[in-house]
Amino acid sequence: MTNSLQKPSQKSGMRPGSLVHVGRVPKSGGRLTVLDYSPEQLEQAEFESIDDILKYRDRDTITWVMVEGLTNIALIESIGRNFGIHDLVLEDILNTHQRAKFEEYDDHLFIVLKCLLPGDDRYSLNYEQVSLLVLKKFVFVFKENVDALFEPLRQRIVSSRGRFRSLGSDYLTYAILDTIIDRNFVALDALDETVTELEDSLLVLEPTREALYRIQRLKKLIIGMRRHVSPVRELMAAMLRSESDLIEQRTHIYLRDVSDHVTRVIESIELNRDTLTGLLDIYLSSINNKMNQIMKVLTVFASIFIPLTFIAGIYGMNFEHMPELHWKWAYPLLWAVFIMLPVALLIFFRKKKWL
Amino acid sequence: MTNSLQKPSQKSGMRPGSLVHVGRVPKSGGRLTVLDYSPEQLEQAEFESIDDILKYRDRDTITWVMVEGLTNIALIESIGRNFGIHDLVLEDILNTHQRAKFEEYDDHLFIVLKCLLPGDDRYSLNYEQVSLLVLKKFVFVFKENVDALFEPLRQRIVSSRGRFRSLGSDYLTYAILDTIIDRNFVALDALDETVTELEDSLLVLEPTREALYRIQRLKKLIIGMRRHVSPVRELMAAMLRSESDLIEQRTHIYLRDVSDHVTRVIESIELNRDTLTGLLDIYLSSINNKMNQIMKVLTVFASIFIPLTFIAGIYGMNFEHMPELHWKWAYPLLWAVFIMLPVALLIFFRKKKWL
Amino acid sequence: MTNSLQKPSQKSGMRPGSLVHVGRVPKSGGRLTVLDYSPEQLEQAEFESIDDILKYRDRDTITWVMVEGLTNIALIESIGRNFGIHDLVLEDILNTHQRAKFEEYDDHLFIVLKCLLPGDDRYSLNYEQVSLLVLKKFVFVFKENVDALFEPLRQRIVSSRGRFRSLGSDYLTYAILDTIIDRNFVALDALDETVTELEDSLLVLEPTREALYRIQRLKKLIIGMRRHVSPVRELMAAMLRSESDLIEQRTHIYLRDVSDHVTRVIESIELNRDTLTGLLDIYLSSINNKMNQIMKVLTVFASIFIPLTFIAGIYGMNFEHMPELHWKWAYPLLWAVFIMLPVALLIFFRKKKWL
Amino acid sequence: MTNSLQKPSQKSGMRPGSLVHVGRVPKSGGRLTVLDYSPEQLEQAEFESIDDILKYRDRDTITWVMVEGLTNIALIESIGRNFGIHDLVLEDILNTHQRAKFEEYDDHLFIVLKCLLPGDDRYSLNYEQVSLLVLKKFVFVFKENVDALFEPLRQRIVSSRGRFRSLGSDYLTYAILDTIIDRNFVALDALDETVTELEDSLLVLEPTREALYRIQRLKKLIIGMRRHVSPVRELMAAMLRSESDLIEQRTHIYLRDVSDHVTRVIESIELNRDTLTGLLDIYLSSINNKMNQIMKVLTVFASIFIPLTFIAGIYGMNFEHMPELHWKWAYPLLWAVFIMLPVALLIFFRKKKWL
Amino acid sequence: MTNSLQKPSQKSGMRPGSLVHVGRVPKSGGRLTVLDYSPEQLEQAEFESIDDILKYRDRDTITWVMVEGLTNIALIESIGRNFGIHDLVLEDILNTHQRAKFEEYDDHLFIVLKCLLPGDDRYSLNYEQVSLLVLKKFVFVFKENVDALFEPLRQRIVSSRGRFRSLGSDYLTYAILDTIIDRNFVALDALDETVTELEDSLLVLEPTREALYRIQRLKKLIIGMRRHVSPVRELMAAMLRSESDLIEQRTHIYLRDVSDHVTRVIESIELNRDTLTGLLDIYLSSINNKMNQIMKVLTVFASIFIPLTFIAGIYGMNFEHMPELHWKWAYPLLWAVFIMLPVALLIFFRKKKWL
Repeated sequence: MTNSLQKPSQKSGMRPGSLVHVGRVPKSGGRLTVLDYSPEQLEQAEFESIDDILKYRDRDTITWVMVEGLTNIALIESIGRNFGIHDLVLEDILNTHQRAKFEEYDDHLFIVLKCLLPGDDRYSLNYEQVSLLVLKKFVFVFKENVDALFEPLRQRIVSSRGRFRSLGSDYLTYAILDTIIDRNFVALDALDETVTELEDSLLVLEPTREALYRIQRLKKLIIGMRRHVSPVRELMAAMLRSESDLIEQRTHIYLRDVSDHVTRVIESIELNRDTLTGLLDIYLSSINNKMNQIMKVLTVFASIFIPLTFIAGIYGMNFEHMPELHWKWAYPLLWAVFIMLPVALLIFFRKKKWL
Repeated sequence: MTNSLQKPSQKSGMRPGSLVHVGRVPKSGGRLTVLDYSPEQLEQAEFESIDDILKYRDRDTITWVMVEGLTNIALIESIGRNFGIHDLVLEDILNTHQRAKFEEYDDHLFIVLKCLLPGDDRYSLNYEQVSLLVLKKFVFVFKENVDALFEPLRQRIVSSRGRFRSLGSDYLTYAILDTIIDRNFVALDALDETVTELEDSLLVLEPTREALYRIQRLKKLIIGMRRHVSPVRELMAAMLRSESDLIEQRTHIYLRDVSDHVTRVIESIELNRDTLTGLLDIYLSSINNKMNQIMKVLTVFASIFIPLTFIAGIYGMNFEHMPELHWKWAYPLLWAVFIMLPVALLIFFRKKKWL
Repeated sequence: MTNSLQKPSQKSGMRPGSLVHVGRVPKSGGRLTVLDYSPEQLEQAEFESIDDILKYRDRDTITWVMVEGLTNIALIESIGRNFGIHDLVLEDILNTHQRAKFEEYDDHLFIVLKCLLPGDDRYSLNYEQVSLLVLKKFVFVFKENVDALFEPLRQRIVSSRGRFRSLGSDYLTYAILDTIIDRNFVALDALDETVTELEDSLLVLEPTREALYRIQRLKKLIIGMRRHVSPVRELMAAMLRSESDLIEQRTHIYLRDVSDHVTRVIESIELNRDTLTGLLDIYLSSINNKMNQIMKVLTVFASIFIPLTFIAGIYGMNFEHMPELHWKWAYPLLWAVFIMLPVALLIFFRKKKWL
Repeated sequence: MTNSLQKPSQKSGMRPGSLVHVGRVPKSGGRLTVLDYSPEQLEQAEFESIDDILKYRDRDTITWVMVEGLTNIALIESIGRNFGIHDLVLEDILNTHQRAKFEEYDDHLFIVLKCLLPGDDRYSLNYEQVSLLVLKKFVFVFKENVDALFEPLRQRIVSSRGRFRSLGSDYLTYAILDTIIDRNFVALDALDETVTELEDSLLVLEPTREALYRIQRLKKLIIGMRRHVSPVRELMAAMLRSESDLIEQRTHIYLRDVSDHVTRVIESIELNRDTLTGLLDIYLSSINNKMNQIMKVLTVFASIFIPLTFIAGIYGMNFEHMPELHWKWAYPLLWAVFIMLPVALLIFFRKKKWL
Repeated sequence: MTNSLQKPSQKSGMRPGSLVHVGRVPKSGGRLTVLDYSPEQLEQAEFESIDDILKYRDRDTITWVMVEGLTNIALIESIGRNFGIHDLVLEDILNTHQRAKFEEYDDHLFIVLKCLLPGDDRYSLNYEQVSLLVLKKFVFVFKENVDALFEPLRQRIVSSRGRFRSLGSDYLTYAILDTIIDRNFVALDALDETVTELEDSLLVLEPTREALYRIQRLKKLIIGMRRHVSPVRELMAAMLRSESDLIEQRTHIYLRDVSDHVTRVIESIELNRDTLTGLLDIYLSSINNKMNQIMKVLTVFASIFIPLTFIAGIYGMNFEHMPELHWKWAYPLLWAVFIMLPVALLIFFRKKKWL
């Protein structure tokens, strides 16, 4: 995750606008699917090349083109050429180390943000970059992986009767953004559970280095999430401020709703950050408490037996004139001392609150 | 509390604007009450369905409709249909994980915020979401629970002679907001007491893990309060900035008063946060002080008895030629040493300020 | 101090604008004094009721009315009625938990802020709320206590020849604010001294829980001061921004001067806060240093005597075949070891910088 | 690095605008190279004096003049005289302690920023100041060192067919800035690796002072980077805000791209800063853990052997009447105690979780 | 330094605008010097009273009047009267506890800021307040001490041929400000050296209370510097924003240069602050490291000798039936154990990484 940010160094020294895929190698070969709809009709297809898509330009329908896997650079280049997209935008689509942003051009909008994917274990997350090109009648979505992220949305459009299909590309854009943002809540649920478990274990069990390590990893995870989510707030604000006629007035209320969700996600992230800082305090004071306990054990043993050993030492001395040695009840009496003294000391310590 | 924020994940993947109640299951079955008043007359009633309310639309009176318990989705849907409320607003009313906000529409205002309820114990708080729809002659209030929160306000309207009843729906809105905000002061009183008690106990008693746990819980409680109260400041600012003709100029002074209260609540929360941070410092240094004391006990015992034991050990040796062993006063003399040496050491330590 | 903030909870549930005194019970019965002046004449008087004041309305003089003690609610109500003051303003005057603020009305200004009073000991401060109502020819001052706070100012007006008396109510307002703000410098002098003494004692004496407790109290005191002074900055800025014709242009330079003083007070508070944070660091490291010293004592004693005791133990064994026991010089030789070994160990420890 | 900032004190007391090179002595003697291009032609040359450059003024080509090594003050003075550059700008070029900034003049732009160079070891970085003077047809670049920093860019221009060469001096400026900013990614890659290694070693190995020292150095390195990079963000914002006709509209998209890169660099720096703060926490808790372990060893040994020694001491006493001494199985039985007691204690400690 | 801020309390209760010198008593008796110049001529003189200066008002030259030592209140009053300066400005000049600020009047500008002077030792700094009154043809400078601060500047004007002397009072103002600001770089050089030395000593030597004390003093010094320098940034911004015709457009570039210097000073101060925070971390972890080492010494001695003492104790017992006591090689064999056991333990500890 951290690593991915520096990889842009691979491109250092290259011509700006040179189209190379910078990022992880996608898991599968790529897919090009189209969903074309109007209130009256709906068409789904999977294509190989851009030429199959061009025909939709003449129709008065909304066309959702989804490019999954970013290896087919020729395809993306040809989309750029056919729909008049700036080279730097295409470069941003291919370089999967982008910060979320919104850019407004004369006849299209460019949106790029990260979608959360479940990580390899509970202490990590993966991110997938999703880019959107929004035209009057077209929405292009570029994703790193081939997966079923937008499957529920597709289903909804297919089964929608009228309403969704009668709205423009801006409403489809909203629906896509909403789908991506809402993924965060699932991750936050899981994170919250992990943090709470860790907190409980810290309050009960021994503080181990392992726990510290976990706190550190969670902190990184949260910092990573914040880094990806917080520019989305600006993105949404920029969209709401935008005066592009690609975003209709009636869509604003939906975008504001997404914006509210983003704010709540960010707040929840901040809350978890505060909790983690608290965990570190608990961890550190647990170590100190542990030390206190160890010291108490040592002190009890030492304080009780060292005086006793001294007394035993006295009567182990070999002086000629030690009258006690000849008394008949001396030895049993000393045993009484050996038993009474520790008890007295313990009571004394307790009273003085030393132990 | 923390938990409640993530629950929105339940809705992930659903159609935006789909009306489902997201949140805690309300405690009772729901209630629909109406208070309709003008300077001359006043009418109170409890209804079952929205149809009974529609008649008030034709009158020139202020109608306060209160929906308690959010299970009756049909009712809320029908309010939306009859009064021209946007689907997303209705969704926000039903989803009780909202951040406080103010939204302005052509012919109505939408306000949502949290009301504080006493928690299960002294270290927790509950929150109830209250949504307001303000129309020219109507104020709808949607609450999660059926309780007596607004009972004093209702009483005041009933017993008011003229003044209150001659003012518009904006003044009623103010009175409702004021009631909700002032609940915070009670909670802050209790919190203040809890914090002070904890502080006193930390300065006197032993530092226990329990205390740390309590500090953590209070910190979370305070963070939670701040999270719910701080957007209310923006809410009030937005209301004061608003140019909607639903808020008359003469109501501004009242809203500013509420706004002042919110600022004082936030300041008080910040103050408590600072105090808690101080508590953690006290806690940590208490642990260290404790350790110092334990170490002192150990050191006193060890430093005094170890040398004595050594001396006793000397005369326990079995050498043939140890002249002291045969002296008559050797043993009593050694006893003198056994008594003098610790005294001398203690005085020496004191002087050197080692102990 | 902290406590006073929550007391507003007493009012929770009451009608807004209901006039009840919320705050400490004033120490004495209240006083109503008037100082009426113009360049030519000056009149001082102490009255019982508002009716005696109304006559000054017809004169072309500046009238300074001072209400000390806020128990006479009828008096304040009657001022409100006679001079057209809004109910909420009167409520703010009576509720002594206000944040400093400046409010502008059509024909009067309302200013409320806190004045510092010496506390019960060096670690506390008291605050008195002072409210000002500024009209064209009148300045009303409402104070919690009957005291001599404004005595020097009164004296100055009485003895002023022309200049002061020829200026308007805005200049009188400035003079009152200046008097209040300058009280802070005295408190800061005392605070500075207390902090410095505490710092010196921490660097020399033992770290005690008492010291920690003092640091905490000073921190609270400083936070309290900041909480009361920092809104005064906004208050002054609002006054300077104000376009009310009650504040003449030539008074602005004086208000700016007060504003500068406020800024310096706030900076000085911040400085003391930083110093206190530093004190906590000193305190914590003092505890650690202390522990180091105790450990050193223990380690020296244990490291020296434990080996010696072992040696003595060897020759206390009862083996038949221990040739050393029969040597004539064995015992004196061992004494030499008992003396040399500790010396050698101490030198060794020193060299290794272990102790 | 830190040092370099204070060196300006050398100039204290001198006339403003006096041209003296303040900074490190450059490594080599300096170089003056020119790259003059238009779509049709391209000319490269290395010159000795400014006079050779003046001829390019009459041509309609873009001329990139690069001055490496800032010792030839006469040369820079003469550039200033011939191209109408303000004395203070020339002073800024020569004083290599500048903060990154953008200044707009009537007929030229002045840009100064730092370029990252690899440091002497993994814990340091060097910086080279690069100043740009952008005129309509000229771009002057002033560098501290003679090196191959812009070699790839030069190659690209030489091999460019048409496109690059047909764009103006603003596009060249963009290409230069892009080259400088992208250097940061390489440094961040290395930094990231160093931090990760340090973190891994802290979690496995002993905490040494060396590690603390490294954390401190990395912190300084990161603070240094941030100090140099964060004003670049303002620089880019100022360039984008600028209304100078030296920056064409179509270049804005490229500048925005650089600006995005700067934002990502700053974010990555912040991320590393957070990680380092975490490292310090790990370091400190490692020390405490270490101490815990040492204490455990001590406590185990002391708690087990001190009681045993006491028991042995008892039967070393010389009382006449100690019946146990004469029992036949007393000694073997005691051996049983000597073996059983430690085992019992260890089990007891484990159970109580004391050790 | 801290102290000086509170001294304004001396003035508490006095008439605003009353001219009393508040601050340190100046070291010498005061001096009034004049430097009057135009491109053609130059005149230097030292006067006793203001009357000698009035004659310059009629000339078309720039007159630099410098008042050193603020004891001659009559002089300052008479300047105020003769040049139409507001009483509050004169008060600000005399009260040397001002925050840096810029004030704009109809026909003059008022600037006040602090100049750094070397402190009594390396851990302190002194500040001298310098006030400037800028008129069309006059610049008044008021300083606390009589010293040679502006001697280099005076020399430059005297020896300037044309250029400096042909510029107005605003350029002189710039030159004075530049001189004052550049003093900071010298102080920062020294500070940087002190901090670096302290850091080096902390990483090598023992952590002493003395070091902590030094860190605290340096922190205060840096806080003090920041407090004096940071309002200078606002001062410069206000000057650049000012539309007074006393500041000509061509002077702006020079003021911007000073502003850049101030920014660099502030950045350098922040950097040192961060380093000092790091020093505290090093200090605290040094104490902990020290404790670890002491504990190790204790643990090694105790862990090795306590078991040996026990073994010796066993054979000091007086049981009748102890067969080992009669074996011939028992004693030498035990010696072997006494030597082998410690070695084995040490190897074991090392392997377990306990020590």
